[in-house]
Amino acid sequence: MQNSKKLCSLAVILTERDNVAVAAADLPAGTQIFEELFLREAIPQAQKFSLQEIRKGEPVIRYGVTIGYATQDICAGVQVTQFMLRVPPTPSLESLRYAVNVRPTEELPLPPVTTWEGYPNREGPAGTRNLLGIITSVQCVAGVVRRVEERIRRDLLPKYPGVDDVCVITHSYGCGVAIKAREAYIPIRAIRNIIRHPNFGGEFILIGLGCEKLTFDMLLEPEEITSENCLYLQDCEGHEAAEKAIMELAEQKLRILNKRKRQTLPLSQLLIGMQCGGSDSLSGVSANPAAGYASDLLVRGGATVLFSEVTEVRDGVQFLAERCVSEEVGHKLAEQMKWYDDYLEAGGVDRDANPTPGNKKGGLANIAEKAMGSIAKSGTAPIIDVLEPAEKPEKRGLIYAATPASDIVCGPSQAASGIGLQVFMTGRGTPYGLNVCPVIKICSRNEMKKRWFDMIDISAGDILTGKKTIEEVGTEIFREILEVASGRKIPYSDQYGYHNDMCFFNPAPIT
Amino acid sequence: MQNSKKLCSLAVILTERDNVAVAAADLPAGTQIFEELFLREAIPQAQKFSLQEIRKGEPVIRYGVTIGYATQDICAGVQVTQFMLRVPPTPSLESLRYAVNVRPTEELPLPPVTTWEGYPNREGPAGTRNLLGIITSVQCVAGVVRRVEERIRRDLLPKYPGVDDVCVITHSYGCGVAIKAREAYIPIRAIRNIIRHPNFGGEFILIGLGCEKLTFDMLLEPEEITSENCLYLQDCEGHEAAEKAIMELAEQKLRILNKRKRQTLPLSQLLIGMQCGGSDSLSGVSANPAAGYASDLLVRGGATVLFSEVTEVRDGVQFLAERCVSEEVGHKLAEQMKWYDDYLEAGGVDRDANPTPGNKKGGLANIAEKAMGSIAKSGTAPIIDVLEPAEKPEKRGLIYAATPASDIVCGPSQAASGIGLQVFMTGRGTPYGLNVCPVIKICSRNEMKKRWFDMIDISAGDILTGKKTIEEVGTEIFREILEVASGRKIPYSDQYGYHNDMCFFNPAPIT
Repeated sequence: MQNSKKLCSLAVILTERDNVAVAAADLPAGTQIFEELFLREAIPQAQKFSLQEIRKGEPVIRYGVTIGYATQDICAGVQVTQFMLRVPPTPSLESLRYAVNVRPTEELPLPPVTTWEGYPNREGPAGTRNLLGIITSVQCVAGVVRRVEERIRRDLLPKYPGVDDVCVITHSYGCGVAIKAREAYIPIRAIRNIIRHPNFGGEFILIGLGCEKLTFDMLLEPEEITSENCLYLQDCEGHEAAEKAIMELAEQKLRILNKRKRQTLPLSQLLIGMQCGGSDSLSGVSANPAAGYASDLLVRGGATVLFSEVTEVRDGVQFLAERCVSEEVGHKLAEQMKWYDDYLEAGGVDRDANPTPGNKKGGLANIAEKAMGSIAKSGTAPIIDVLEPAEKPEKRGLIYAATPASDIVCGPSQAASGIGLQVFMTGRGTPYGLNVCPVIKICSRNEMKKRWFDMIDISAGDILTGKKTIEEVGTEIFREILEVASGRKIPYSDQYGYHNDMCFFNPAPIT
Repeated sequence: MQNSKKLCSLAVILTERDNVAVAAADLPAGTQIFEELFLREAIPQAQKFSLQEIRKGEPVIRYGVTIGYATQDICAGVQVTQFMLRVPPTPSLESLRYAVNVRPTEELPLPPVTTWEGYPNREGPAGTRNLLGIITSVQCVAGVVRRVEERIRRDLLPKYPGVDDVCVITHSYGCGVAIKAREAYIPIRAIRNIIRHPNFGGEFILIGLGCEKLTFDMLLEPEEITSENCLYLQDCEGHEAAEKAIMELAEQKLRILNKRKRQTLPLSQLLIGMQCGGSDSLSGVSANPAAGYASDLLVRGGATVLFSEVTEVRDGVQFLAERCVSEEVGHKLAEQMKWYDDYLEAGGVDRDANPTPGNKKGGLANIAEKAMGSIAKSGTAPIIDVLEPAEKPEKRGLIYAATPASDIVCGPSQAASGIGLQVFMTGRGTPYGLNVCPVIKICSRNEMKKRWFDMIDISAGDILTGKKTIEEVGTEIFREILEVASGRKIPYSDQYGYHNDMCFFNPAPIT
C-alpha cells in the first residue's frame, strides 16, 4: 500500500481509489489541484479535502480503505473534517485471513551498513548504553532512591568513566495493588523484564521496602536474590544507613560495569522499538513510512524491530493479519486485539477513545484513519511473532508487541521488552524521552522541525515537498539509528535529560 | 471501643470479649500471662496468641469483634496465625444503621492550643507552606518541567526567601487515556483540585503539551486560562524557549507568592489528613488510637480531619455508619463502599487483596483485623460528611474521604482534597512523603523508632510499655501537627526531600 503513493507538491493522494487528499502545505482557496479541481476553500496543512463529490452515506477513502462514511453530501474541493465522517465498524476478528501476504525477507531492501558498536551481553540483544540500573520494587522507596541517584551521579560516576549513567526505574506498582488479580501478571512481568534490560549488562540493584506485596521472589530467580543485588530499606538502620547501603551496592556494580566495552556487532544483536505519538495526518505519509523503510532495512540485516499500540492498529488489523508468517502468529495477534476490545468495553469506551484533540487538529478524523497511518511504521517485512505487553522477544525480525497506544505506557512496555533504542514519530511534537534507552524523534513536517529545531532529531518533511523519497529518508533514519545505538550521537531528549516516568500498564485493580 | 483497652506490659487485650491478645514485646515460651495462662510457645512482638481454647469454627475475637473463624481447634497460649483463621464475610451494606452512635462534638476533649500560624487563603483552608505550584496536565511534559524545577530552585528561589519551595506535580494522566470513560472524572477531579491546593496560595502554573486529551478548559475556569497561568509547550519555539518561558512565568508567580505571610489563625482554617501504611497488629493499639485522639482534639478545636482507605474500613463500616451524623451521610458512605466492592469484583478480587506480607509479618491475620486497627485513627468524633476520591470538603469536622488504601494513591488523593499536612501511622516503617504538604510519621512500636531514629517523627510505643497513655501520645501528636503546620518544625521526609509520585487514582481504561 505505501508503495503506491502518488505525491505532488500540493497534496498527498495515496492510492487511485482515494476520494480525499491531504494538503502537504497550507493551500489557499482557489488552488488548482487537477485540471478540473480547484479548492473551494482554504485547506490548512495536514487537513483533508475531497477530490470528487461524495454523497451522504458513501465511503470516504484514504490509503485505499474506507476511513468513514459521509454524514452529509460533500462537494469536490472542500475540507473534510471529522464531523463529516461516521467511524466505520471495527474490523471483525473472526474473518481475518492470516499469512496470505507474507513478503519474503530476501525481498526487503539491503541495508547499507551491517554492523554497529554495542555492548554485548551473555544472552539476548546487546546494549546501546552502559548503565547502572537501579530498579525499585515498590513506589514507597522512590524518594530515597532518587536522592541516592543524585549522589551516585555526583560522587561515584566520575570515577567510572566507562559507565554512561545511572538509570533509576521507579513506578507506581508494587504495593497497594491486588497482587493476585487476574491481570496482575502484566505489570509484574514489566518489572521483571526491565530488571534484565540489555543496557544494564546483566547487573542490577533492586530496592524494596520490605513489607510490600511485590516481593523479590516474584521478580528474581532464587540465585539472583543476593546481598549484592537486593536491598530492603526496612533492613537498614535509618535514613543515612539506607543511603549508604545503596551507595555501596552501586560502587560494587560500577566496578563491574566499568569493564564493559563496545564491540563491533552484527545487526542481529540490535533490538529497537517503533512508536508514534502526537500524530497528524501527514505522519502516515512521511515519518511513519520512512521509519517503516528503516525497519525493513534493519530486519533484512537481521535486527529485531518491535511495533505496538493496540488501538492504533485495531482498524488496520486485517493488513497485519495477512503479513503474519503463520496462522499461529495470526491467532496471537487476534487474541491481543480481543483482550483490548474487552478491556475498553469494560470501561465503557471503544478504540475510538484513542485520537486526541491534537490528532484531530492535525487532520486525523478518527481512529480508522489514524490506524492506517500508524501501521505504516511497520514497513513491509513479515510479522514473525506477537508479544503480550512487556514480553521479551524470542525470535528475530519484525514483531508486533501489543501495548497500549499511550506514548507514556507503550514506551516503558517496549523498554521492558528490552529495546536498546526507540524511534518515535510525531506530527505535533513532544519532548518525550526514556532514561533506559535513547529515543530518536522524527517529525512528519519540516515546519515542525523548524519550530522545534532543538528537540526533533530528523524531519521526514522533505518527502512532502518532493525533495526526498521515502527510501532516502528511511535510509537516513536507519543510519541515525546506528549512530545513536553505537553511542556516536546523543539524541536531543538525552542531551537535556528529558525523561518520562515508567508508567507500566496495570489493568488490575488497586486496593 | 478504643476506650475500653486493658493493657499490661506483656500483651494487649482490647475488650472483655476478646479471646486473643497481642504480644507487646517478644515473649518467650512459658511466660505467665494470667494466673492460669502460660504461653506454650514463644510469641514474637505484634503476634496474636489465644487467651483460651478456641474450637474449630468458633469466632476469633479481637477489638470485641469477630476477626475470623478458627479453621482448627486452638488451645490456650499458642500463636494464632493467619492460616488458623477463615476471613469473616464482608459486612452487609443493606443492614447498616446510621447515626445511632453520634458523640456530640462538645464531649470531645478540649485542645490545649487553639491557634496556629498559617498562610491564609481567600477561601478554603489556610496553607501550611508557601509553595510555587507547577502542575502538569500531561505526563509528556514531565521531563521538561522537572528540569526547569531544578533551575528555579537554583536560580530563582534564593531571590524570594518568603517562598518555601517549588512544587512540581507530575502524574501519569492527561493523554493516552479514555478521557470520556465512565470513571475518567476521578483522575480529572484530582488534577483540577490539586491545582487549587491551599499551599499554592491561589496561584499556579499549568503546563501542557498542546495536543493532549486533558485540555486546560477541563481543569480551569475560563477566566483562569491566561498567559500568566498556562503554557502549552507546543506553542514554544524549541527546548530553550520552552524552559525560558516557564522560568519567566515562575518569576512572576514568585513575586506574588513572596508577599504571603504566616498569620495566627484559628484551628478552623486547618485541614489535615490521616493515613496508615505498613501497619502491624500494634498499629491499631498505639499509633492509630493516639492519632485518633489527636483528631478528636483537632475536631473539637474546629479543624477538619480526613480519614480514608476504603478497603481498610470496609470490614468495620458498621461502626462508621453508626457515627455518621445523618442517614444522608450514611448513604454516601455505603455508596462509596459499594462502588469499591464492584470495582474489585470486576478485577476478580475482593477487599482481602489488601493486606501485605508486611502486615502479616506484623501479626495482622486478614483484612477484618486490619480494618479494626485502621479505623481507630478516626477517633470518636461524629462523621459529618463523606467525600468521593479527591473531592474538596465543604464542611468542617471529621470527614471520611473515600480513597484507595494504597499509601501511594491515598496520599495524592487527600492532597487533591487540600490537606495541608498528613499524619502517617506505620508499624513496619516507610520513607513515604509528599511534596505538596508535610507528612508526620508516627510508629506503633519503640523498636521501630529506635531502628529508624532519623525517619520516624514520633513513636507511640510508650502506650505499649505503659509509660504513656493514648491521651498523652495523642496530645503529643496534636502539638507536633501544629508545630509542623506552623512551619516551626520540618518532619524528616521533608528534610531529606523524600517525596513520592502523585499516583492519582484512575479506574478508567487507557488507550
